[in-house]
Amino acid sequence: MSLFITFEGGDGSGKSTQIELVAKALRADGHEVVLGREPGGTPVGREIRRVLLHGEHLSGRTEALLFAADRSHHVDTHILPALKRGAIVLSDRYYDSSIAYQGAARSLGTEEVARLNAWATGGLVPDRTFYLDVSAEAGLERMRGEHDRLESEGVDFQRRVREQYRALIAAEPDRFVVIDGERPAEEIAADIYGGIARMLTP
Amino acid sequence: MSLFITFEGGDGSGKSTQIELVAKALRADGHEVVLGREPGGTPVGREIRRVLLHGEHLSGRTEALLFAADRSHHVDTHILPALKRGAIVLSDRYYDSSIAYQGAARSLGTEEVARLNAWATGGLVPDRTFYLDVSAEAGLERMRGEHDRLESEGVDFQRRVREQYRALIAAEPDRFVVIDGERPAEEIAADIYGGIARMLTP
Repeated sequence: MSLFITFEGGDGSGKSTQIELVAKALRADGHEVVLGREPGGTPVGREIRRVLLHGEHLSGRTEALLFAADRSHHVDTHILPALKRGAIVLSDRYYDSSIAYQGAARSLGTEEVARLNAWATGGLVPDRTFYLDVSAEAGLERMRGEHDRLESEGVDFQRRVREQYRALIAAEPDRFVVIDGERPAEEIAADIYGGIARMLTP
Repeated sequence: MSLFITFEGGDGSGKSTQIELVAKALRADGHEVVLGREPGGTPVGREIRRVLLHGEHLSGRTEALLFAADRSHHVDTHILPALKRGAIVLSDRYYDSSIAYQGAARSLGTEEVARLNAWATGGLVPDRTFYLDVSAEAGLERMRGEHDRLESEGVDFQRRVREQYRALIAAEPDRFVVIDGERPAEEIAADIYGGIARMLTP
């Protein structure tokens, strides 16, 4: 049974650690698990990521289009083929990130970003989205020394990102599972694994 | 008085030659002329163009998003600032190219490509578009040895591109000027220069 699971959260919310732990547990059960990440989850996507980090100022629109191009290629060449094989896909970020971050940057309306991404992905919606909730301060503390231009613009920005995610969660409460991300990693992973295992049980 | 003029046509239709000749004539009259090109008219755009030429197969959607990102940045950082200064901008291709080529490739509907580009450009419509009309055979003959993956996929494809352009011209007859592109270059340039000069006359 294929499942498309995405992981969302602010910077330093622990998504990659969780994906690693959960993938290990699911593989131990014999499932094929495919990992994805945005931006830069494919060879073409890594080149797009380089454009995003180019250094020249990009407008919100140009950024949104580049993230959407990365996502479109990720879906076409990586996510959909894995789902067709019956794999479980765990993706580190998906379109909710674009909506939350670009909404927080106040450069574009969240509705236009959502519309662009619905088109870019051919309407592929995750079966479940785990949102790792950490305070802006805790996330930034974890991220020290790992920043790049796509991430972290200070506590105020991270707070706005969190508000944007809350709005997305309120709009789709059945798709999102909110996880307290400030607990020990193993405890969080056990919750997420449990949630996915229930989806796999007929 | 600022003017935004775009040049369209199939591969080998002589756009770059015409832009060079017309720019020279307008500059001789004392106008500031700024040249643009898509894709790859900016440093960021040249990196995007490299992604388009990466070699891996890209879906119509991914391609459309990358062309739109290139265009959005071209408009923001190159075309709009020049127009604000009162310059005449001559661009080698603009959104009509995406609509005609992606329509010809039959990968996407022309309406969705048009909608994406209207958003990407913030609705910036050219004041005039010169369409250089040459037969598919004549264009390909001129292009021999200059092909890259973004261009020319044979006579049938070039014919479909020409059909798509005809549909765009029929829909906006006031914006387009159709130019017989198989005449001597100087004769064509004189026609285009004359057309622009009339737009500049109060």
